[in-house]
Amino acid sequence: MDVLAFAQSLLRCQSVTPADGGTQGLLAAQLEALGFTVTRLRYGEIENLFAERPGAGAHLCFAGHTDVVPPGEGWGHDPFGGVVEGGMLYGRGAVDMKGAIAAFVAAAARAPGHVSLLITGDEEGVATDGTVRVLEWMAANGKIPDFCVVGEPTSRAVLGDVVKIGRRGSMNARITVTGRQGHVAYPHLADNPVHRLIAALGAMTAAPLDSGNEWFEPSSLQVTSVDVGNAASNVIPATASARLNVRFNNLHGSAGLTEWLRGILAEFAPANELQVQVSGEAFLTQAGLHTEALTRAIEKVTGVTPERNTGGGTSDARFIARYCPVAEFGLVGVSMHRTDEAVEVAALSRLADVYKTLIEDFCR
Amino acid sequence: MDVLAFAQSLLRCQSVTPADGGTQGLLAAQLEALGFTVTRLRYGEIENLFAERPGAGAHLCFAGHTDVVPPGEGWGHDPFGGVVEGGMLYGRGAVDMKGAIAAFVAAAARAPGHVSLLITGDEEGVATDGTVRVLEWMAANGKIPDFCVVGEPTSRAVLGDVVKIGRRGSMNARITVTGRQGHVAYPHLADNPVHRLIAALGAMTAAPLDSGNEWFEPSSLQVTSVDVGNAASNVIPATASARLNVRFNNLHGSAGLTEWLRGILAEFAPANELQVQVSGEAFLTQAGLHTEALTRAIEKVTGVTPERNTGGGTSDARFIARYCPVAEFGLVGVSMHRTDEAVEVAALSRLADVYKTLIEDFCR
Repeated sequence: MDVLAFAQSLLRCQSVTPADGGTQGLLAAQLEALGFTVTRLRYGEIENLFAERPGAGAHLCFAGHTDVVPPGEGWGHDPFGGVVEGGMLYGRGAVDMKGAIAAFVAAAARAPGHVSLLITGDEEGVATDGTVRVLEWMAANGKIPDFCVVGEPTSRAVLGDVVKIGRRGSMNARITVTGRQGHVAYPHLADNPVHRLIAALGAMTAAPLDSGNEWFEPSSLQVTSVDVGNAASNVIPATASARLNVRFNNLHGSAGLTEWLRGILAEFAPANELQVQVSGEAFLTQAGLHTEALTRAIEKVTGVTPERNTGGGTSDARFIARYCPVAEFGLVGVSMHRTDEAVEVAALSRLADVYKTLIEDFCR
Repeated sequence: MDVLAFAQSLLRCQSVTPADGGTQGLLAAQLEALGFTVTRLRYGEIENLFAERPGAGAHLCFAGHTDVVPPGEGWGHDPFGGVVEGGMLYGRGAVDMKGAIAAFVAAAARAPGHVSLLITGDEEGVATDGTVRVLEWMAANGKIPDFCVVGEPTSRAVLGDVVKIGRRGSMNARITVTGRQGHVAYPHLADNPVHRLIAALGAMTAAPLDSGNEWFEPSSLQVTSVDVGNAASNVIPATASARLNVRFNNLHGSAGLTEWLRGILAEFAPANELQVQVSGEAFLTQAGLHTEALTRAIEKVTGVTPERNTGGGTSDARFIARYCPVAEFGLVGVSMHRTDEAVEVAALSRLADVYKTLIEDFCR
């Protein structure tokens, strides 16, 4: 099969989350033609699939998503046209990440071995009816792989320069502090919740959470909003609220951070309400046979030794990490989520070669 | 003249700021009948007057206002009826402060001496076309008195228990801090204005401004609002703003406090905009012949030794203090600004006696 032609077919499907646009059916048909057993998994309004081909050696899974973010305005090329111009393939999802899906399918067509694909249509959305639920199905059916590679566009400047072997965790908190309303002229009769909130937020932001470690940059707490909404200059308000986000490395967990926030609030603002929403815990895939195989494949095909890092936002790898070792490797991501998202046609073939070399190495 | 009958006439005028309702004309006619020269001073839409009667001794001025706050709903008596029931005179302005005006006019009718009245119709409003402008006129015409008594309802539980000899100053500030917007996952590429504002407000509220002194309670800074309005949990916002009010004693001035705020902002949030609005400076009338005369008059008539304090909100005394010694003394204020505002008829007569005794003592 031709990686470019298949990537073009995928790009011509209008699959802005939660729409599928025919991508999952197209992919299922291609995989079945290659000898895969495909299980379509629809959860809510989301189309997902798990495809598996039996074979020798360890079980390698490729994880990805067929959904894309909206194209927005101002494109110089049809965002759903699959146009090639000057050696570049244009389209929403070219690098994030229909191109990588096409590359992995082309690789699997050329290399034998026990491989599977976990493909969701809900990565750019709320991600509740996608990878999380497919993983539950895989666990229930004994399909957890030995290693999973997520095809997110991790490369920075040239294909192969960055592999992600972990991600920071992320959690949001909303704090509401209650005081006692009163006249500013009589502060001893009131209890200013703004002062309590300022003191608590001051304690939360006074010092860094940590200084990072070999694999992670320092954790970061950012207060994203403080809101009181009191327009009366002579009134001490009754309540004050704040929102914050914590991006934390593997020195922390969301439960411990929540306790730490509770402790500070108990000290400075005992009458508080704390709501915490955890997007994901931090994870790190320790170096081992699987990540070594990925590194060797990249070096062999591209001549580049990848930097292993844990930077950037979250991806579905955070869910997969609960089940098996996971790393992320894909195209150069500079055009992702931008107008005229595009991939070098030559890079598509090279990525297919990397994935092929990985299958041959890991599944032997 | 009869203090109760005159107070009733004033209460029957509907003089909710800025309306005059005929109060100033009624007062002018009564004062002219008593030998006063009355100058009506209309500024903008506000009626004011200055009335003077030449006489022996020092010049004592009585300052007051004929305007009242709106009655609101829920009265058991006509708020503009001047009704007497069970020894109480009911009406909006009974204690704040048409009753005190009637008492001073009755006192002047019975005691000779160089007395004047500064009466505004804009004390409960924005106070820009009232006492401030009458004082300018008085200064330009050589009418600044040796001592001024403001007839605000200072008494707490019984007539005579409190004289105010100063007031705290008040200023409002609005702070806007500018940072650099960015994604919470990349805080090093952004500059969080919320953190800068929290640090600045923390420094402003960390310690009391002072511990007060013999005459004043401690100064107080209250942050009344913080507003960012950022609903996106993954975005570091571009700006953050706060509002605060400072009630300050005579250890501070608004200029020095503004510089102090500027200094803290320069340290924690150099990219800031600070807007300051000063309502009034602190003032204190030192004990002297004038305040001694007032105290003696109160003790002689009521048998109560007044506590001298500087508590409470602002009054027009803050403007008068720029020109001459000023103290405030009047009825029990508990019903001011409330439904069924009322004064004991007997207290009206006793207050007239206090003012009469003061005129006799001070102007001799």
